[in-house]
Amino acid sequence: MTAQFTELTERLIAFRDARHWRRFHGLKNLMISLNLEASELLELTQWKSDGQVEAAIDDADFRRRLGEECADVLIYLLLICERAGIDLDQATRDKITLNGTKYPVEKVRGNARKYTEL
Amino acid sequence: MTAQFTELTERLIAFRDARHWRRFHGLKNLMISLNLEASELLELTQWKSDGQVEAAIDDADFRRRLGEECADVLIYLLLICERAGIDLDQATRDKITLNGTKYPVEKVRGNARKYTEL
Amino acid sequence: MTAQFTELTERLIAFRDARHWRRFHGLKNLMISLNLEASELLELTQWKSDGQVEAAIDDADFRRRLGEECADVLIYLLLICERAGIDLDQATRDKITLNGTKYPVEKVRGNARKYTEL
Amino acid sequence: MTAQFTELTERLIAFRDARHWRRFHGLKNLMISLNLEASELLELTQWKSDGQVEAAIDDADFRRRLGEECADVLIYLLLICERAGIDLDQATRDKITLNGTKYPVEKVRGNARKYTEL
Repeated sequence: MTAQFTELTERLIAFRDARHWRRFHGLKNLMISLNLEASELLELTQWKSDGQVEAAIDDADFRRRLGEECADVLIYLLLICERAGIDLDQATRDKITLNGTKYPVEKVRGNARKYTEL
Repeated sequence: MTAQFTELTERLIAFRDARHWRRFHGLKNLMISLNLEASELLELTQWKSDGQVEAAIDDADFRRRLGEECADVLIYLLLICERAGIDLDQATRDKITLNGTKYPVEKVRGNARKYTEL
Repeated sequence: MTAQFTELTERLIAFRDARHWRRFHGLKNLMISLNLEASELLELTQWKSDGQVEAAIDDADFRRRLGEECADVLIYLLLICERAGIDLDQATRDKITLNGTKYPVEKVRGNARKYTEL
Repeated sequence: MTAQFTELTERLIAFRDARHWRRFHGLKNLMISLNLEASELLELTQWKSDGQVEAAIDDADFRRRLGEECADVLIYLLLICERAGIDLDQATRDKITLNGTKYPVEKVRGNARKYTEL
């Protein structure tokens, strides 16, 4: 079994420790950095309409930049989880299950108003 | 081989489609939602000093909430990648390699100033 | 002359000091809080199309919530400036002048591509 | 009486209209842009401890950059309020009054726990 999260985390820790950067990676600073990367992702939409962002998916350069920003968000997410002892895969499975009880199919299906109000 | 990203993405798509929510998941809106979740993660640090955030790791309730917020960020990250046709695992491996050329070990090791200025 | 920034700042400082909250208002924490409020502002757009956000301006409840979130952003902005000794009015005048040299009228007028690329 | 908000807003609108940029300034896009600027403000704290951010106030270059980022946030705040017909000065006075009823002095004075839990 290849556990992708474990393998990527190991690469990130090796990267960090080769540079002696662990001391900069306090939890609060990692959480700030994740927000900065999320913002760089959002910046790809700046001054674009909903439709223009959708259309940009077909642009190779846009998709490459989007991939890089998504990677940066995941990198900080894995570093946070490593620091705090969180199993991200398990936490995500649990959260999907929790969301299932918060948004039961029969209650919200195809209903925008219910979706946005719940 | 268990591909965690693929499996989680499949669960998310099944969740979304059972609720007929695909039409709300435009790319721009998913990118906004990811930022809102990143902000909820950051909110866990509000009014806490660096040291208080670090100490909170030992608090079971804090760690549970941190896990839930990390999961929410990953959920939107996977939905964005699915929508845009991005292989998040590959994109992250590529980004770590790229970062290695941007921050060569011999140039930045143990050096806070170089780290923050590069 | 009524200096609005000065008057609002004085009210905020009186509010803070009556509650003995100054010690919580470190600069880093104020900057985090401003980001959390900016995010609550953005949340008003969640799952809405560009057009739906525009249309929501006519909704009294939406406008009231928008006003409250804008106020929260300004409150933290004024607290940051007070803490750091920044004259926000002057800084904004200077920035508008600087932007005028960065985006000269003859170069960018009515040109979306130039606007987004500059 | 000099109304600073009004005067700054008038300068911003003249700036925008001279460049024929009104059509890019949809409300959703302005709210995204405010978040991007808030993030640039937060970036000034990246990899700095609470104490290092506090100490940076004495650094002229840091204070200049902080002033510019604060100005950028205010610029988008004023553009949003202009677009949505919000009186930012009044909205802020109302919000401070509202906060006074949410956080009564006798209940929260000098009490960190109450402050963070309320």
